[in-house]
Amino acid sequence: MKIDIKSYNIEQLNRLCKDIRERILEVVSKNGGHLSSTLGATELIVAMHKVFDSSKDPFIFDVSHQAYAHKLLTGRWKEFDTLREFDGISGYTKPSESSDDYFVAGHSSTSISLGIGAAKAIALKGEQNERVPVIMIGDGSMTAGMVYEALNELGERKYPMIIILNDNEMSIASPIGAVSRMLSSAMASPFYQKFKKRTEQFVDNFGDGARYIAKRLEESLKLITPGIMFEEMGIDYIGPVDGHDLKSIIDILERAKGMKKPVIIHAQTLKGKGYEIAEGKHERWHGVGPFNIESGDSYKKSPAKSATQIYTEALLHAAAHNDKIVGVTAAMPSGTGLSELMEKYPERFWDVAIAEQHAVTSMAAMAKEGFKPFCTIYSTFLQRGYDQIIHDVCLMGVPVVFALDRAGIVGEDGETHQGAFDISFLRAIPNMTLLAPYDERSFHQAVGFASTYDRPCAIRYPRGSFMECELPDSAHFELGKSQLLNSGEGDILFIGYGNGVGRAYQTMKLLEREISLLDLRFVKPLDTVMLRDLAKKHTKWFVFSDSSKAGGVGSAILEFLSEEGISDVEVVSFEYEDDFIKHGNTSLVEKSLGIRPEQLAEKVKSTLKKD
Amino acid sequence: MKIDIKSYNIEQLNRLCKDIRERILEVVSKNGGHLSSTLGATELIVAMHKVFDSSKDPFIFDVSHQAYAHKLLTGRWKEFDTLREFDGISGYTKPSESSDDYFVAGHSSTSISLGIGAAKAIALKGEQNERVPVIMIGDGSMTAGMVYEALNELGERKYPMIIILNDNEMSIASPIGAVSRMLSSAMASPFYQKFKKRTEQFVDNFGDGARYIAKRLEESLKLITPGIMFEEMGIDYIGPVDGHDLKSIIDILERAKGMKKPVIIHAQTLKGKGYEIAEGKHERWHGVGPFNIESGDSYKKSPAKSATQIYTEALLHAAAHNDKIVGVTAAMPSGTGLSELMEKYPERFWDVAIAEQHAVTSMAAMAKEGFKPFCTIYSTFLQRGYDQIIHDVCLMGVPVVFALDRAGIVGEDGETHQGAFDISFLRAIPNMTLLAPYDERSFHQAVGFASTYDRPCAIRYPRGSFMECELPDSAHFELGKSQLLNSGEGDILFIGYGNGVGRAYQTMKLLEREISLLDLRFVKPLDTVMLRDLAKKHTKWFVFSDSSKAGGVGSAILEFLSEEGISDVEVVSFEYEDDFIKHGNTSLVEKSLGIRPEQLAEKVKSTLKKD
Repeated sequence: MKIDIKSYNIEQLNRLCKDIRERILEVVSKNGGHLSSTLGATELIVAMHKVFDSSKDPFIFDVSHQAYAHKLLTGRWKEFDTLREFDGISGYTKPSESSDDYFVAGHSSTSISLGIGAAKAIALKGEQNERVPVIMIGDGSMTAGMVYEALNELGERKYPMIIILNDNEMSIASPIGAVSRMLSSAMASPFYQKFKKRTEQFVDNFGDGARYIAKRLEESLKLITPGIMFEEMGIDYIGPVDGHDLKSIIDILERAKGMKKPVIIHAQTLKGKGYEIAEGKHERWHGVGPFNIESGDSYKKSPAKSATQIYTEALLHAAAHNDKIVGVTAAMPSGTGLSELMEKYPERFWDVAIAEQHAVTSMAAMAKEGFKPFCTIYSTFLQRGYDQIIHDVCLMGVPVVFALDRAGIVGEDGETHQGAFDISFLRAIPNMTLLAPYDERSFHQAVGFASTYDRPCAIRYPRGSFMECELPDSAHFELGKSQLLNSGEGDILFIGYGNGVGRAYQTMKLLEREISLLDLRFVKPLDTVMLRDLAKKHTKWFVFSDSSKAGGVGSAILEFLSEEGISDVEVVSFEYEDDFIKHGNTSLVEKSLGIRPEQLAEKVKSTLKKD
Repeated sequence: MKIDIKSYNIEQLNRLCKDIRERILEVVSKNGGHLSSTLGATELIVAMHKVFDSSKDPFIFDVSHQAYAHKLLTGRWKEFDTLREFDGISGYTKPSESSDDYFVAGHSSTSISLGIGAAKAIALKGEQNERVPVIMIGDGSMTAGMVYEALNELGERKYPMIIILNDNEMSIASPIGAVSRMLSSAMASPFYQKFKKRTEQFVDNFGDGARYIAKRLEESLKLITPGIMFEEMGIDYIGPVDGHDLKSIIDILERAKGMKKPVIIHAQTLKGKGYEIAEGKHERWHGVGPFNIESGDSYKKSPAKSATQIYTEALLHAAAHNDKIVGVTAAMPSGTGLSELMEKYPERFWDVAIAEQHAVTSMAAMAKEGFKPFCTIYSTFLQRGYDQIIHDVCLMGVPVVFALDRAGIVGEDGETHQGAFDISFLRAIPNMTLLAPYDERSFHQAVGFASTYDRPCAIRYPRGSFMECELPDSAHFELGKSQLLNSGEGDILFIGYGNGVGRAYQTMKLLEREISLLDLRFVKPLDTVMLRDLAKKHTKWFVFSDSSKAGGVGSAILEFLSEEGISDVEVVSFEYEDDFIKHGNTSLVEKSLGIRPEQLAEKVKSTLKKD
């Protein structure tokens, strides 16, 4: 049931905020989730609901991992128990879950564009007096180019819109870049400093009265400085305001509501507010696994080394031996495992903020200059740099390495974050090489290969740890060379790519027979010699890869067979069908897709029975 | 031979500018090309070469269609005759053409990112005293988000870099958005106006002396206002300066060279400068075909109606009957044929500047609100909005129509602009529907279908006119339904998609026999019923589509056959091989790829002979 807070007074609202925080802590400490941003945004969200109405006003949460309070207020208090669980409440806004969720969001910086679309629709429908888009966006999301593209149109066309800039002086990591600095430290801004200096020099020629006036002017300027960029773009700016002071926020929102033009409200909040252990802490408390509320200690679950950790180790090793190796992350230093490299080699590894387009293209230039950049971006976020991969990296043929973390199913983050499409969208690009490791050893070898390879390439690896595979140690990576890990009798050939190798291996074990198992290693270029040879011995090929079927690994193999005129090989791909994949525990999600080893073993059996 | 202008005096340099303009006019009037921007940038480029050295300093031209003068100065004066011709000089910078060309560029707004990559490399190599990146970027390119992402890092890390902002108060169309306005009319800026008002109110309480001081402060502020955003981001700003005054520009570049930090030089230029007919004219003289220098009249070549024209007519028709139809272009109103719609329905069709990400996502919200947006973007530029298509349109399943102009080979623009990849990167996305018309009538039908379709879809069509196809009139579009345009005896089936239908038809005519010809219409979803049926009658399928082979139409058909377990059908795809496709006259380019009908007819014959 929705909580109607329209009649609540400030005291009641503050009590509600306390209840909301307790509920969030209770569930997130049990299920894991995004914690500190959502705790910090509680008063802002309560104020949004007090002043506006999410059943008609589009409430647009950027990234939307801070929107838990919104979920609790809109009929999901009880179900919130199932946060991020399979078939449970999503960690992000989701219209199919509640009509109070206007849009899906999981990638950052889409909110102002959505607000403009909504505002255009509102104008065309003549509903300007009834509805207004209300946006909440964090300072971290302000670095992505999309926001700027949207502000550019908004400043020109001036659609009524409320933009709450939730400024906790950090994005996911520590604040990076000119925009963050501008927001968080107006007084130290270069513009302000320069203006001050000029004023002082000028005023020194006059008497005390002049100095007094200049001082006052300076102060009035200082007040508007944090918003100067927005004002300059033609968007009204109010702030900064204390984002935990409910009365102030509500007053300002009421005022903004009446302005009938775009307004940015700059609210300063404390990440983790209300949970002392997490307050003001940066990356540690952004996204968390289950933890003990009293101590803040996390309940470690997975003893196996994650692919990300292996990547860090492999890259540290490579970087120590080759000083041409550099790297970049787009606001995910810890998530991508680049933190250690940034600490050890601060002049060679950079966080460029949420800015995938810029990350890719800037590394293209470094590659042209003789460096070997490791562009380390989650599979799903690399979609943001697609044009840059084609136009700036591959067309130039420069040796940028794309390290794609979170390729395949990502578990609890769900639909918006699945790393399903990278093979399909990268395989079509000329000059691109695609490879994947399946375990710790082969990952080291893959990084070794990429470190000296002189053209663009992309390495994909899963979230969490690789599926176990107890087959003989792998050999070094050689361009376009696969590796036969197991030889079996009979028609069947299992082809694994990346984490698919472990999946194929476990399926084989369940079938209790020896099956030929190929570690494909490169889906571009394919090992045509090996495949041609295997086609002579095996005519039933099963493809295992954690990727979309359309244009994926199986598709690459079909293209090869067609080109070769090999018609007697039957290919069955166990890649993802043509659907967005839901959130939840990875095993449960895989089970729902029918791709757990035990399910695949059954499928292989039934395919064989048909013959 | 390179022209060494280091010793030239201003008079000689001005004469050189005159010669350069004459050469450009001579060649562009003959070959077509980008005219007005390159004429406007002549002095700026000459000054760059006077002060810096493109054999060591990275000269980075944004989009690079304005870099003809740079080509002429760096050993390509004579070969410039072959501008944009097959095997001739490219219309863009191209390192394989000259080592003075630092990077390829054809898509906008990559330059500052490239500059940052180059600057990082320079710093790591310890070459700060020897080399500096020199960037030229037009005001139109300043609207894309990439620029902002790069400025954010630049303002933070302050790498030495010269950025010449070539401000001709227009991008390709008329200036759009807050950024353009900010650059071109500092005095009218909202910030300045507000500041002025506050100052006046404040000062009114004091005497004349105070008013004098305030006035002076105001003036000093006014001077820095156009650059306030840059200053605020931590980047030094110089300007505005007259971009045709060689002496001033050279002086400023010399000064900036010594500053050892990032500097933006704001130069105001006149588009078309030196060719009176084109001076200051907006879209008409941006990119031109061959024309008469005296009169400015263009030599019309193609009497056939272009696909773009058909699109305009079809959309005008649809928009007249359905007021929910809206649309957007990203700075290409005339190129995409949206101008007429923007004129007729200014409240329903928008140019959002070079901002593909924002264009896509803002239309997603409109679609959710019940509108039917036509997001009209060249195939190659849609690569910039890839993540937004997945995350904001398809995940929501909202009915945005993507109208992909310039799908296939684009001719003279070449590598950077080929519309080769759209099928591969869109086909992998769940909830997406892909269709294509092959002639005027079917295009109207496709637009009709899209106008009422309730999910995301993309229509692709070629640059210029469709290949001719004299087959029976096509029927209405029905989701996932293909159309058999011709029935023939024998094993062979031709499958055409989009412009591939005409290619298949012309190939068939050359073979002088009746061949079954399928207009596929939808590559997603496929017409499985029809294909299953045709597989019973025909076992040699030839696929005709102007698209990349990897993950393309042939690949979709192979996936289908594999799923169905149909093993006796042989598929030959005539799509593009895995290479970037060069520039030049489209027929010549197609010939070089072996995909002209006469070549395809030979290939079909020889394939048949093998049996």
